[in-house]
Amino acid sequence: MPAILAATVAEVRAALADFRRRGQLVGLVPTMGALHAGHAALIERARRECGCMAVSIFVNPIQFDRREDYEAYAIRLPDDVALCESLGTDVIFAPAAEEMYPAPQSVFVEVAGLTDHLCGRFRPGHFRGVATVVAKLFHIVAPHRAYFGEKDAQQLAVIQRMVADLNMPVEIVPVATVRDPDGLAVSSRNRRLSPEERRAAPALFQALQAAAQAVASGARSAAEAKAAALAVLEACPEIRVEYLEVVDPATMAPVEQISGPVRIAAAVWLGATRLIDNLYCPAVAR
Amino acid sequence: MPAILAATVAEVRAALADFRRRGQLVGLVPTMGALHAGHAALIERARRECGCMAVSIFVNPIQFDRREDYEAYAIRLPDDVALCESLGTDVIFAPAAEEMYPAPQSVFVEVAGLTDHLCGRFRPGHFRGVATVVAKLFHIVAPHRAYFGEKDAQQLAVIQRMVADLNMPVEIVPVATVRDPDGLAVSSRNRRLSPEERRAAPALFQALQAAAQAVASGARSAAEAKAAALAVLEACPEIRVEYLEVVDPATMAPVEQISGPVRIAAAVWLGATRLIDNLYCPAVAR
Repeated sequence: MPAILAATVAEVRAALADFRRRGQLVGLVPTMGALHAGHAALIERARRECGCMAVSIFVNPIQFDRREDYEAYAIRLPDDVALCESLGTDVIFAPAAEEMYPAPQSVFVEVAGLTDHLCGRFRPGHFRGVATVVAKLFHIVAPHRAYFGEKDAQQLAVIQRMVADLNMPVEIVPVATVRDPDGLAVSSRNRRLSPEERRAAPALFQALQAAAQAVASGARSAAEAKAAALAVLEACPEIRVEYLEVVDPATMAPVEQISGPVRIAAAVWLGATRLIDNLYCPAVAR
Repeated sequence: MPAILAATVAEVRAALADFRRRGQLVGLVPTMGALHAGHAALIERARRECGCMAVSIFVNPIQFDRREDYEAYAIRLPDDVALCESLGTDVIFAPAAEEMYPAPQSVFVEVAGLTDHLCGRFRPGHFRGVATVVAKLFHIVAPHRAYFGEKDAQQLAVIQRMVADLNMPVEIVPVATVRDPDGLAVSSRNRRLSPEERRAAPALFQALQAAAQAVASGARSAAEAKAAALAVLEACPEIRVEYLEVVDPATMAPVEQISGPVRIAAAVWLGATRLIDNLYCPAVAR
């Protein structure tokens, strides 16, 4: 089924108005294109739950802390449209940067606290850019539900807090991380890995599993869980650790003692490619 | 006609849903209560233009830079409700602070640039608090139109920029300042003036008029226009000037040369009471 392809705010609003008039629930999957199996899982979930399913494809310049990273983020719109259509997408919103930012942006959504650690610490301004563009997309599309992957756990927490604190009338639906058979979390950045880097990359997930296993086995200190993960990563000379933390899942702040559920989150570099992943660890009865 | 009085987000959304189902245009007049003739002008305009007219009454703690100013901002809900009902309000949203801020707020809407001067310079955090609560109210009420007074010109500019930059689906309607017969702009703060201060207060508007007259007569430098205004204010020993500026109406930044439309804006203190006012001056053919 061909999807409606909208390039402007006015076009996408007009397309969605037709569905809304028929009483359809609107679901939104915000993406930066370069769609892969992780996005497909979001789209399939949205398709099952919503009478009208929209995908946005927009590489958001204001969330990149490094210009070269923005420029490397090449999307292939025909491929992305084909994938969206194969999954039954009703409306694709793929605006140009000038449509989303016709003038220099002077209004930003700032999320305090949650962004002090993990990626927020290493990518200044990143989550401000994410929260701002997601707020814009929510105002443009007015979805009833929006779907986000758990792979970007800090991003998900930021969006959930934004929606709660600003009373946005949208339900955020988290979707489990999709992994390759060897455990590597699917990401558009995986394509940039050399064959050697790709072979080494599953160590990231293995390290998180080692930490989670330590927690499940009764480790009460974050240091102990981190040591188990770092032992795995240090065995891989291709991998440089940016951060590896045991955090409170609600605040994304590092904990020292493990007394409830935690999330183990890490960012690593393989050559010039940065990968992130995380695992949720439920509370362990002591 | 009795209005529907809603104290919670859920109640006001339910009340408005009924109007929306009937296809009514929703208009919102956001207020901090202590309603006066200025608010009445906003409400009357909204009543003429919208099938469903809502007034919010909420003294927003996060926009006060001084605790004592927040505490002095006493609203009298029964009087406010009576005025709203006399003007045909359909829905009054009067939440408690805990309903609007159930947890400490960690998400803020920041408006850069526009807030560097005038009130923004003297009231740190004020416009961040205003933009944040208005974003919350817009998400709760989802109005088609929202009405703001021109007396708070910098606030109006901030809201207009927020709506544009975040693609909010709401039309902002500016409404002309309402004045007492002697020219004093109507404000809830006027009640705090002593009889002597109230007698001196119209000098603020007279000063703005003197500056506007200088512009209309061909003054090309802001300094000349400001001197005309300051001459009026300096004749009043009761008045202390906080700022008096000739600004670009779009950016609210002070100008030195007058080459197009400008706004003359001032804040003054009479005793412990701070009053603001402003006048728009169209471009003068040279």
